Amino acid sequence: MELNGREKNIAENGIESEEQMSLETSNIKKEKNDQGAEEMSVEKIFENKEVPSWKKQLTVRAFVVSFFMSVMFCFIVMKLNLTTGIIPSLNVSAGLLGFFFIKTWTTLLEKSGLLKQPFTRQENTVIQTCVVAASGIAFSGGFGSYLFAMSERVIKQSEEGKAGFQYKNPTLGWMIGFLFVVSFLGLFSVVPLRKIMIIDFKLTYPSGTATAHLINSFHTPEGAKLAKKQVRELGKFFSFSFLWGFFQWFFTAGDDCGFASFPTFGLKAYNYKFYFDFSATYVGVGMICPHIINVSVLVGGILSWGLMWPLIETREGDWYPAGLSHNNLQGLQGYKVFIGIAMILGDGLYNFFKVLSRTVAGLVTKIHDRSASMHIPTVDSPSPTNKPLSFDDQRRTRLFLKDQIPTWFACGGYIAIAVISTLTLPHIFHQLKWYHIILIYTFAPVLAFCNAFGCGLTDWSLASTYGKLAIFTIGAWAGTSHGGVLAGLAACGVMMNIVSTASDLMQDFKTGYLTLASPRSMFVSQVIGTAMGCVVAPCVFWIFYKAFPDLGVTGTTYPAPFATVYYNMAKLGVEGFSALPKNCLKLCYAFFCASILINMIRDAVGKKRGRYIPLPMAMAIPFYLGSYFAIDMCVGSLILYIWQRINRAKADAFAPAVASGLICGDGIWTLPNSILALAGVKPPICMKFLSKGTNSRVDKFLAPKP
Amino acid sequence: MELNGREKNIAENGIESEEQMSLETSNIKKEKNDQGAEEMSVEKIFENKEVPSWKKQLTVRAFVVSFFMSVMFCFIVMKLNLTTGIIPSLNVSAGLLGFFFIKTWTTLLEKSGLLKQPFTRQENTVIQTCVVAASGIAFSGGFGSYLFAMSERVIKQSEEGKAGFQYKNPTLGWMIGFLFVVSFLGLFSVVPLRKIMIIDFKLTYPSGTATAHLINSFHTPEGAKLAKKQVRELGKFFSFSFLWGFFQWFFTAGDDCGFASFPTFGLKAYNYKFYFDFSATYVGVGMICPHIINVSVLVGGILSWGLMWPLIETREGDWYPAGLSHNNLQGLQGYKVFIGIAMILGDGLYNFFKVLSRTVAGLVTKIHDRSASMHIPTVDSPSPTNKPLSFDDQRRTRLFLKDQIPTWFACGGYIAIAVISTLTLPHIFHQLKWYHIILIYTFAPVLAFCNAFGCGLTDWSLASTYGKLAIFTIGAWAGTSHGGVLAGLAACGVMMNIVSTASDLMQDFKTGYLTLASPRSMFVSQVIGTAMGCVVAPCVFWIFYKAFPDLGVTGTTYPAPFATVYYNMAKLGVEGFSALPKNCLKLCYAFFCASILINMIRDAVGKKRGRYIPLPMAMAIPFYLGSYFAIDMCVGSLILYIWQRINRAKADAFAPAVASGLICGDGIWTLPNSILALAGVKPPICMKFLSKGTNSRVDKFLAPKP
Repeated sequence: MELNGREKNIAENGIESEEQMSLETSNIKKEKNDQGAEEMSVEKIFENKEVPSWKKQLTVRAFVVSFFMSVMFCFIVMKLNLTTGIIPSLNVSAGLLGFFFIKTWTTLLEKSGLLKQPFTRQENTVIQTCVVAASGIAFSGGFGSYLFAMSERVIKQSEEGKAGFQYKNPTLGWMIGFLFVVSFLGLFSVVPLRKIMIIDFKLTYPSGTATAHLINSFHTPEGAKLAKKQVRELGKFFSFSFLWGFFQWFFTAGDDCGFASFPTFGLKAYNYKFYFDFSATYVGVGMICPHIINVSVLVGGILSWGLMWPLIETREGDWYPAGLSHNNLQGLQGYKVFIGIAMILGDGLYNFFKVLSRTVAGLVTKIHDRSASMHIPTVDSPSPTNKPLSFDDQRRTRLFLKDQIPTWFACGGYIAIAVISTLTLPHIFHQLKWYHIILIYTFAPVLAFCNAFGCGLTDWSLASTYGKLAIFTIGAWAGTSHGGVLAGLAACGVMMNIVSTASDLMQDFKTGYLTLASPRSMFVSQVIGTAMGCVVAPCVFWIFYKAFPDLGVTGTTYPAPFATVYYNMAKLGVEGFSALPKNCLKLCYAFFCASILINMIRDAVGKKRGRYIPLPMAMAIPFYLGSYFAIDMCVGSLILYIWQRINRAKADAFAPAVASGLICGDGIWTLPNSILALAGVKPPICMKFLSKGTNSRVDKFLAPKP
Repeated sequence: MELNGREKNIAENGIESEEQMSLETSNIKKEKNDQGAEEMSVEKIFENKEVPSWKKQLTVRAFVVSFFMSVMFCFIVMKLNLTTGIIPSLNVSAGLLGFFFIKTWTTLLEKSGLLKQPFTRQENTVIQTCVVAASGIAFSGGFGSYLFAMSERVIKQSEEGKAGFQYKNPTLGWMIGFLFVVSFLGLFSVVPLRKIMIIDFKLTYPSGTATAHLINSFHTPEGAKLAKKQVRELGKFFSFSFLWGFFQWFFTAGDDCGFASFPTFGLKAYNYKFYFDFSATYVGVGMICPHIINVSVLVGGILSWGLMWPLIETREGDWYPAGLSHNNLQGLQGYKVFIGIAMILGDGLYNFFKVLSRTVAGLVTKIHDRSASMHIPTVDSPSPTNKPLSFDDQRRTRLFLKDQIPTWFACGGYIAIAVISTLTLPHIFHQLKWYHIILIYTFAPVLAFCNAFGCGLTDWSLASTYGKLAIFTIGAWAGTSHGGVLAGLAACGVMMNIVSTASDLMQDFKTGYLTLASPRSMFVSQVIGTAMGCVVAPCVFWIFYKAFPDLGVTGTTYPAPFATVYYNMAKLGVEGFSALPKNCLKLCYAFFCASILINMIRDAVGKKRGRYIPLPMAMAIPFYLGSYFAIDMCVGSLILYIWQRINRAKADAFAPAVASGLICGDGIWTLPNSILALAGVKPPICMKFLSKGTNSRVDKFLAPKP
């Protein structure tokens, strides 16, 4: 699952459970709390600062910086996509680095007397929005999931030995084209609703709010000082992580070489994927993710690779034919993939209905409140609901309503792009018919609204759940004979892109609202960022695809686990359960129910005790992959825990920066790494791990012949 | 060289250069300075505390603790002896741990109301003395140098292919016997001179003074608090280092496996012994040693393995016959060993004459001062030299003179042991005749006095230099035909034990003087400690010898470098230069002179700039061994440097504790390690480093046959 984050207390809403929310919230919240009192009158601090017009907020330098950061974050997200599919929120790093680059630039110019326009928080928000939009495409583009799932390389593993399956290998051309025709719809679909969501409903958007607080804090004098220190920490760990990646590279001549194959707990444990693989990225991810996620992943790993797989292995020849290759879905691999899918679907379904019910309930309440007052809250007529609007709210509302985006523009844009898209898509995917697309585009605005609204309440984007919905419905409609699998996957892509960009945009509107950035500049920035992402993300994927010929193959550095999962999910939707090995379906049902049950228990026992119950979605990831990254993440958790014990304040202030440094450094190392791979440069040394017996055989083999 | 430490500023004496001094001084001095003002009236603080009688200072618990710590330190010293021969002073750890054990014990007893005798600083001094005496034997017993140099295993490497050489393999019996008959002479030889050296001459004994200050500081309330924190740091790093050693062990199935063979800088550099071998011990040693020593070792390593050996290798077939085994002294190995010896001898000779001249000059001045006054300074008649005796000095002098050791006892003891020794030694070493022994014992008291006096002035024990003197004189006297090599090595042992225990005892008297411990209790403690050492040290060596069958073989974990060096030194003395390969003698002369020259330049440019000139003795060690431990030590230096930059005060207070923890933990790990080796338990995994080409060959070899 593209577990984009989850498990966090949205105390403001009194809502206890949530999923796939942007992970940084819990971290940024601390900073928000740090300025607690300040929050009350944050706009007083900025009162003397002029807010630039929306055109002036969109500076060339902001987009230049955004472009370079987009490339960087695309690499990072792509690496995460293709290794485990766990992507923590990189908003903090994006915010920090954007601030750092522009601030350095303006400080330099200021010193040389050439500065024309000072660096404002609005500009900072523009960068943040643009980078998040671009790197969002690297995720919702499905390079680690639906899109790559169509490729021959992935399908061949699942359809081992069978011929005649349909596939669509990635090429740069159709990927960019596809993304361009589907990624902008989401933006247009929710633009007209921004006033209702942000001002009338006052939705929280925890991630957007947290990001806004971060940006606001950067631009206060003390905030700038703290940010500088954080940037220094980030830089230190960025360099460390990059150099560590570089150092590791030297020892990876050949398969199973290097630190990533280090049998930390012995060779037996290594064979069952229990080892610490020295990945700075996942240690960083572990530091950002809440402890319970890391523990869940580990629990899932122990349950599957420590218990179930070894037990099922003893049934070889009974439950499934002996002697199959380890990639064959008729064998053990089938259990791994389908039990994982069952758990993910159970969790998804439970949460879909939960969020949906909350969305409807919330909507009813909000509309009721609104119709009761029938006021448009402006500066002159404060909303009469409970209390008069604060100074901050007044100022923010005024500026938010100043720059309008006409509704005709939004509707016209949506229809225009939908038409282009309907005409283009069947040419890219022959299996996807025009009536499928029209169906999606008819329901998409509603689902986009649902997602944006749910996300505003719970911070949890259900994009991939809506995507799965599309897989099953469109896949079943198209049917096996007409390439339902590919049709389903393509439909998933269309749906995911719409709903995910919609909720992203609304998050950004909230950030803009809180930093006094104009909705227009937010919209333009999001459009430019999306366009960047549509070009940059496929190119980055292309580099990976060309540089690592075993990309997507189980057991390699880049197994792209969700590609296999998505393909098999689509196949399941089209063909049913016929292909599963013995007892697999029973186990799937059990885990599907267990997943729902665990979620129910989590909600039932209340927030306090629920925190100690693992999350089914997180538990399912190692089912297929193994626990090595879970161990990295727990190491990250442990480091954070010890740090917090030693110095809570410092840990809270700097842990996100340190973690971002670790993730970014290692992520950026993949750039030179893939260039080296493309250039055919092989590392010089293999650090190999041999058992005692094998070692003495090798020693004999290598000894000079007498 | 048993570089026991060196390069430190003895500001008190205005003496700038020194060698082989106990390394802790420079570290402990800081603590001394910390209590700066306190030093002026340290005895005022303790005025109310009763000083126990000398018999009460010698408690059973002190010797029980001493015994266990002796075993531990013997392991550590033995490991250092057998790996590189660089032994930092372990006084700080001994002081800290002794304090910690007894304090814990007494605190426990106090709580249960069973405490009969409180823990005094005199008792602390007794433990310190006993442990240092015992672990001193592990060094001066020559297990890494002269004694092991007599073994077949070491000689066979130097005399490759030749037969008929004489050797004496170590067995537990003769080693213990030998140590018992030679180790006590030194004690008796200098006992009568204690008043002259300590009170009349007021010699500094920097190590002894520093240790005394450490112990005094522990027994003040703030000192105890700091000591507790230091002990906690020590404990933390002790555990880390121990566990790290344990972890490393798992990956060492076979030769060239594990972290100790990690080609950190690539395989080419690894072949020339440039790599970081992840040894916690030498990182700790590097933290204790002054920066210049670490840099010297690295410079020596770069000069030899980076420059000279590769160049000489190109002369293979010209300067020396091609195709020799790498241990053959006729080949490259000869250059490595003899150039190293030349440099060590040059350094030794220069410093011998320097210290001797200072000793004589100092002696003349002191005797002149003394005869000018002709007073015995007591409390009633303060020494009229310059100023009246301070309160501290009065109190200390009174207590120091209270418990006398009769001169007849010392002389009688010396003669009795000398007679026993003369009768016994020829039975142990047939090559050593009774007249050789009588010659040594006639001159020994003078040399012991010289060494004790020189050590008091400069903190630099010349024991191994006197040992080398014995090698050359007795070896040449006995001659080749009568086994001069073994005779020389045995004589070296006799001489080294006498002069080294003599200076140790006098250091302890100084410590006792400053902590109000009675000379009698010091003497008894030293005797008991020496006796412990005479039994424990050979047993520890025996465990190493039995557990690691390749102990002493070049290129293994325990190469015992100085065993080879001592054997070849003795051979050189007996047989002359005939055996050296071409141009080797010329290079030896050059390096001998260079060594003296560098020392002269160091002294000439003054203390301030002299600090930046490397020490020839330290440079010579990697000539034979390679730079891997130099890199460890520089890492230690770097860590210390960065720590000092971040927080000077904290680094100064805790670096010695951290370093001791690292050294002790890794050292103690050798105990279970050798037990595992004795029990025949092999580690399960080999972490192997293969070049790209070899790796693909191995992969092909290991691939399952189709």
